[in-house]
Amino acid sequence: MSVASKRRVFFISDRTGITAEMLGASLLTQFPDIDFHRTHIPFVTNELAARAAVATIDKASADGGSPPLVFSTLTDPAIQRIIATSSPFVFDLFGTFIEPLEAALETESSHTAGRMHGIGDSGVYERRVQALNFTLGHDDGLSPRDLNEADIVLVGVSRCGKTPTCLYLAMHYSLRAANYPLTDDDFEGDALPKILRPCRGKLYGLTIVPEQLSRIRRERRPHGDYATLARCRAEVQQAESMFAAENIPYLDTTTVSIEEIAATIVRDMGLH
Amino acid sequence: MSVASKRRVFFISDRTGITAEMLGASLLTQFPDIDFHRTHIPFVTNELAARAAVATIDKASADGGSPPLVFSTLTDPAIQRIIATSSPFVFDLFGTFIEPLEAALETESSHTAGRMHGIGDSGVYERRVQALNFTLGHDDGLSPRDLNEADIVLVGVSRCGKTPTCLYLAMHYSLRAANYPLTDDDFEGDALPKILRPCRGKLYGLTIVPEQLSRIRRERRPHGDYATLARCRAEVQQAESMFAAENIPYLDTTTVSIEEIAATIVRDMGLH
Repeated sequence: MSVASKRRVFFISDRTGITAEMLGASLLTQFPDIDFHRTHIPFVTNELAARAAVATIDKASADGGSPPLVFSTLTDPAIQRIIATSSPFVFDLFGTFIEPLEAALETESSHTAGRMHGIGDSGVYERRVQALNFTLGHDDGLSPRDLNEADIVLVGVSRCGKTPTCLYLAMHYSLRAANYPLTDDDFEGDALPKILRPCRGKLYGLTIVPEQLSRIRRERRPHGDYATLARCRAEVQQAESMFAAENIPYLDTTTVSIEEIAATIVRDMGLH
Repeated sequence: MSVASKRRVFFISDRTGITAEMLGASLLTQFPDIDFHRTHIPFVTNELAARAAVATIDKASADGGSPPLVFSTLTDPAIQRIIATSSPFVFDLFGTFIEPLEAALETESSHTAGRMHGIGDSGVYERRVQALNFTLGHDDGLSPRDLNEADIVLVGVSRCGKTPTCLYLAMHYSLRAANYPLTDDDFEGDALPKILRPCRGKLYGLTIVPEQLSRIRRERRPHGDYATLARCRAEVQQAESMFAAENIPYLDTTTVSIEEIAATIVRDMGLH
């Protein structure tokens, strides 16, 4: 399908555009039959940038077809007023709520540029970077000392999604997330590996459908026993029975995004 | 300040709550003089969960003080109607835009639960995990082969923010982000290190105020020359003159969040 036949969508923001994009993209999923062509215009912080954005949108409209949709998260009403002229379909994701919020809080808003992603509280920034450093340093393996320092320890077979989840937990929740891969050695005797016993309360299991695991492993290491369906089935079954026997909460990651795995863990473990 | 004297805020969502939290938190930054006490209730996917959420909010209201603020991103109107009874100040961040969007698109919305963070397109998921694996495998150092595979190569002195930025670029933009730390060896002669020459078009520099760099380094390695202000000043100055001499775009990360550094790089390099 050519660009011209898709509905044009613009995301306009005065900072990174992440908020505009997340909410806008979420709203668009409600219209699965329409093909959208998305353009991001971040850092629209002054009237000049706003007029340039309007010119870009006008140019897209001139191609013919329906008027573009424009999602904006702009904190400066003067800049928003300029963007509002760009299309009959401008969705002001931010300003829409400011007046009712002012009424609820009986306070005027400051109209300062979105500080959400600013470095703001440097303590928050440092906790985040320290969590990331901890997580990077404790991927795929642990020492007993690490267990005391970790906020959460993910356990599961190789390639079930532990590492991306740990990184997300560190990046977005500033959690020191370690992980421990379950291997054949750990399955002898069906008991919890000795190193994990002192941190039983921090353990969270990840599991995955064996067919999917086999596919993922094959891409990484196509030869040998590692990726065979039989081996994947056996490992997953042993991991799941360990989780059940030891009362470790666990989640099947097969059809779940990294964001959802992380949010589920944070909720289940009461970590927020 | 006690919890009771803060204004209570609830974030209600049917999935992870990330969208509700980001937009809600961004809106609240417009009221810097008010202290908020935030509670997250994710995965409100049915009427039972919605009634439990309302009960939680009611309990908070019963503490006295002003009614809580409630931010919701719920796709099911029936569940939203239940949440709407919880406070006079419910902000429906999602539903508010659905009707105007239906009008703009001349289509009814599907009202399916937010699929934004679902695994959805498994190709997207795999690109993301591959980008993360690449980035993890190419932190702090490179081989010439890696340069061909990278989408972006961050350069800068040790501890200026390269690693967290690379991880964010991989996690959120599915970019294969490598990084190369500039050390004393690289500063002899002021020319671009030989290994970086073939990928000049992929280079992006990060820099930082020397005082901040010294503070960060001191936490990591308090003794020796590494963290001294004199050494930090010299390294930063040499890195910046290399960026200037070689026409490498660069950004000062001192007061900028990881999200903003990443969004700026993506914009400057035309990577979206």
